[in-house]
Amino acid sequence: MRALIFDLDGTLVDTVYAHVFAWQTALAEAGMPIDGWRIHRRIGMSGGLFTRAVARELGRPLTPEQARFLQDRHGEIFRSLMPARRPLPGAVALLRHLCEAGVPHGIATSGRHPEIDASLAALEVPADTVVIDRGVVSRAKPEPDLFLACQERLAVTPEECYAVGDSVWDLLAARRARMLGIGVLTGGYGQDELLAAGAYQVYRDAAELDAALDELGVLA
Amino acid sequence: MRALIFDLDGTLVDTVYAHVFAWQTALAEAGMPIDGWRIHRRIGMSGGLFTRAVARELGRPLTPEQARFLQDRHGEIFRSLMPARRPLPGAVALLRHLCEAGVPHGIATSGRHPEIDASLAALEVPADTVVIDRGVVSRAKPEPDLFLACQERLAVTPEECYAVGDSVWDLLAARRARMLGIGVLTGGYGQDELLAAGAYQVYRDAAELDAALDELGVLA
Repeated sequence: MRALIFDLDGTLVDTVYAHVFAWQTALAEAGMPIDGWRIHRRIGMSGGLFTRAVARELGRPLTPEQARFLQDRHGEIFRSLMPARRPLPGAVALLRHLCEAGVPHGIATSGRHPEIDASLAALEVPADTVVIDRGVVSRAKPEPDLFLACQERLAVTPEECYAVGDSVWDLLAARRARMLGIGVLTGGYGQDELLAAGAYQVYRDAAELDAALDELGVLA
Repeated sequence: MRALIFDLDGTLVDTVYAHVFAWQTALAEAGMPIDGWRIHRRIGMSGGLFTRAVARELGRPLTPEQARFLQDRHGEIFRSLMPARRPLPGAVALLRHLCEAGVPHGIATSGRHPEIDASLAALEVPADTVVIDRGVVSRAKPEPDLFLACQERLAVTPEECYAVGDSVWDLLAARRARMLGIGVLTGGYGQDELLAAGAYQVYRDAAELDAALDELGVLA
């Protein structure tokens, strides 16, 4: 195995619970209250897919304008709830370690610039790091496009990549991209849920993954 | 089986994610940032136990005054985040159904009056319903005291009770009280986590539990 591709929210930065609560608030404001746990289990999908899935569940199909409005309102609430970003344990050190060891790696996120810029800054990601955001591809997770675009930019094959994420959507996208998926618990899924979605291994967080790079066959 | 004892937050009302984010914010303000998922997995413990566990994890033991301050600040943030309470799907109908069928039931929560009053009102709980709150017992979950106090008030034996909750702390308390535990997914734990903690059955939410009262042997 030669390369690692990382999800961002919930995998490298501690944003999942703020995202859940921001969606819950935005949807309640729009007269579409929905259970927190159902939102949680859909975080990591593209925002468009998420809003359409929620609307279907409520039996109220949304127009593209309504979906866009909800996404914008979610973003507003999220930024007011969480003005600063906190890297998850070991995330900054892991990325630095991969740089120093010359292991190809990148970030592939369903988020978009400029929303993700604060997270990248908090992670001290060098400017030349490969970052694929939602704006680069036509379909976000659980489609494999984000991971595949990242792998192409890293100039490795899919079979040489681990895709690391906190949600079942990352793991589904990894399988569809023919990559091995690695789960982390920092997004609040249970270990069994991630294994059932096809994770090859599940680590507690980036720190535990960093300590396991040898057993993953990543370090030469 | 004759009686049902319910946890409140995450089981009957949709408050878990607001609680997680309120704790995350209160702890960060106090210079003790901690991962959202670790907070999530401790929701449902007593607030005192929770703050002490968090402090131990951070290697900074808290004085009782500091723990009390954090709990108060959490309460303030929680109320500002979530001024209204939303019953989870089927919760109001389930409680009404149990009343009509004459099935003994009560609520046993690590929360306290007056904080829980808005939740009880949203659930349309009649005034004569047995509600055991944190103020009634000396030890909250995962100690069995709350469930045992509720069972005594219901005048049934522990072996005749199902204890219904969304967290592993409810299920641990149920086992220690010699009751059968029932899990619900509405608190954001995975099904396997709840089964591993000893749940006899896991239902999606109160609505699914309501439809399963026959298979639980509760209805005569």
